[in-house]
Amino acid sequence: MTYKNAGVDIGKVRRVHGEIGAFVEKTFAFRKGKFGEVLGKFGHYANLIDVGGGRALALHSDGVGTKVLVAQLMDKYDTIGIDCVAMNANDIICIGAEPVALVDYLAVEEPREEMISEIMKGLVAGAEEAEMAVVGGETAIMPDVIKGAVPGRGFDLSATSIGVVEVNRIVTGAAMKPEDIVVGLESSGVHSNGITLARKALLERRGLSVHDKLPISGEKVGEALLKPTRIYVKPVLEALGVAEVHGLGHVTGGAFSKLNRICMGRVGLLLDQMPEPHPVFFDIQEAGNVDEEEMYRTFNMGVGFVIVTSKETVENVIEACRRHRVNASIIGKVVEDKGVRLVTSKGRMIKL
Amino acid sequence: MTYKNAGVDIGKVRRVHGEIGAFVEKTFAFRKGKFGEVLGKFGHYANLIDVGGGRALALHSDGVGTKVLVAQLMDKYDTIGIDCVAMNANDIICIGAEPVALVDYLAVEEPREEMISEIMKGLVAGAEEAEMAVVGGETAIMPDVIKGAVPGRGFDLSATSIGVVEVNRIVTGAAMKPEDIVVGLESSGVHSNGITLARKALLERRGLSVHDKLPISGEKVGEALLKPTRIYVKPVLEALGVAEVHGLGHVTGGAFSKLNRICMGRVGLLLDQMPEPHPVFFDIQEAGNVDEEEMYRTFNMGVGFVIVTSKETVENVIEACRRHRVNASIIGKVVEDKGVRLVTSKGRMIKL
Repeated sequence: MTYKNAGVDIGKVRRVHGEIGAFVEKTFAFRKGKFGEVLGKFGHYANLIDVGGGRALALHSDGVGTKVLVAQLMDKYDTIGIDCVAMNANDIICIGAEPVALVDYLAVEEPREEMISEIMKGLVAGAEEAEMAVVGGETAIMPDVIKGAVPGRGFDLSATSIGVVEVNRIVTGAAMKPEDIVVGLESSGVHSNGITLARKALLERRGLSVHDKLPISGEKVGEALLKPTRIYVKPVLEALGVAEVHGLGHVTGGAFSKLNRICMGRVGLLLDQMPEPHPVFFDIQEAGNVDEEEMYRTFNMGVGFVIVTSKETVENVIEACRRHRVNASIIGKVVEDKGVRLVTSKGRMIKL
Repeated sequence: MTYKNAGVDIGKVRRVHGEIGAFVEKTFAFRKGKFGEVLGKFGHYANLIDVGGGRALALHSDGVGTKVLVAQLMDKYDTIGIDCVAMNANDIICIGAEPVALVDYLAVEEPREEMISEIMKGLVAGAEEAEMAVVGGETAIMPDVIKGAVPGRGFDLSATSIGVVEVNRIVTGAAMKPEDIVVGLESSGVHSNGITLARKALLERRGLSVHDKLPISGEKVGEALLKPTRIYVKPVLEALGVAEVHGLGHVTGGAFSKLNRICMGRVGLLLDQMPEPHPVFFDIQEAGNVDEEEMYRTFNMGVGFVIVTSKETVENVIEACRRHRVNASIIGKVVEDKGVRLVTSKGRMIKL
């Protein structure tokens, strides 16, 4: 199986995004010379607008994707909000910004009060971890637009977040240079990416239920897939204060291929010290007969976030992570050769 | 028919929102004493966060609801983005803020490139009218979450927007006093509220197709329902500059009952000079056998936005609207009696 034949054609998504981006950038002119002039280009982790005083606001929108379907199958909704905050906050920090506030958008098939309350519980827990305020939200009840894995339980959850960064401290990856070190921060599991492929592999192809145990990891399918995405705000903000940080990357949609963004066509990454992936990834790979390369293009494979730092401050980064109870290790380095190369757990070198 | 039996129980929505609000407000403490401290309370048109320099940012999220289904039935997607901008920008200006930037969230059943491009076309057109930059967006492809009126055409469109306002120029309605005048700004038609009731009445109960003509207004059903929501940014911002504006209200979900918000339990509104509603509202009322009071609780009935101003500057407000080609007229006044009272086109006094 591939992510594409599971229903998500990343190539097509990228093409559509590219076209949208070029077109939508025209709107940047509408704020030219006014408050809120646009600084960043459409398509990096988050865009930036100038708010004066040497500061910029980062804006970003993201959802939890089809992880909502796993929550519905488990009839358990108290952590999906954490994923929603994570998908937003982890992208906001990629440009060196401090997450500030979040507004959620919840579209439901039916106005089930308990389900909605549980979703909000997770959102509040995530906001606490990311130190963000949830300053608003919209709940739309649309039985003709939203469906789910179980009738009546359908919902879609996304959010938009803002962060603040001093303009002269924006991190884009442009400062990355050969010999810089790539530190990988451990993920909590599958996070909120590739869930479509994981579901199809485990639930459809292998025919497991969410309550069955995974043969390799031993976890229950639903629990493994629903485990909330780790929020990297605290370790990353601390690393920014104690280390020379040249690049930051959330391993999200497109997984390691997404790190090409921070290379900016200038340098490359050689990730030759990747940790052993969490066993759940082998369960998915085996159930879906998924190619190893496809796994690294779709899943975080145990590394949810990367911090690129100068050699001299590597230990500061790892120490900052440790203080926030996030395992981190050197997973590779910056090289002159452009693109992202990765040595898989089977010892194969792949280009992403 | 009522909005409730058409599938949208506004009472339940309000109750859920109330519960969410109280709970989510706890997150405001997470920014206490930091950049982005929360100023506004959850639940007004838009919440505010302090960004220093005497300025606050307004944040708001809103979607176009089931108007997407009309677009799908018409297979016409180039204006629904205007509605999306309108639903956001018209709420942002309600607190006196200037709309600045917007991030869209589009969830689709299938990645139809042409459909997505058309949707973005409308978004860009709306952003131009509202003078906002579209600084990002997320397109999620989720065949298992999104459905539509026609297989494959399903989508859900929402956005989050930010605006800026000087803290000492925030408009909440708290300055409204008896004898102030309420100016009503003409709507373009049904806008993006009550579409569920309109669809059920016209398409299901009356059995019309989107291509049929409406008996009273003579418009085609689909064209009448799909007509884009008017964006009131320019006239309102101009009015704020030339008049004493004490209250601003977008006539959106909940229609005229929503104006209770700006009364803040202090004063009331007596809307006894409402204009004759656009004929499309009579088509909906007749097809659905909808009670007149329910109509004013669900639809804008021809008035999409209200500006409350002191007697002395009424003409300035009307003139500001005229300069932006928006018909505006006095529709009532502020009174001591709390609540919103409205005299319908049939001469009946209703309390909302």
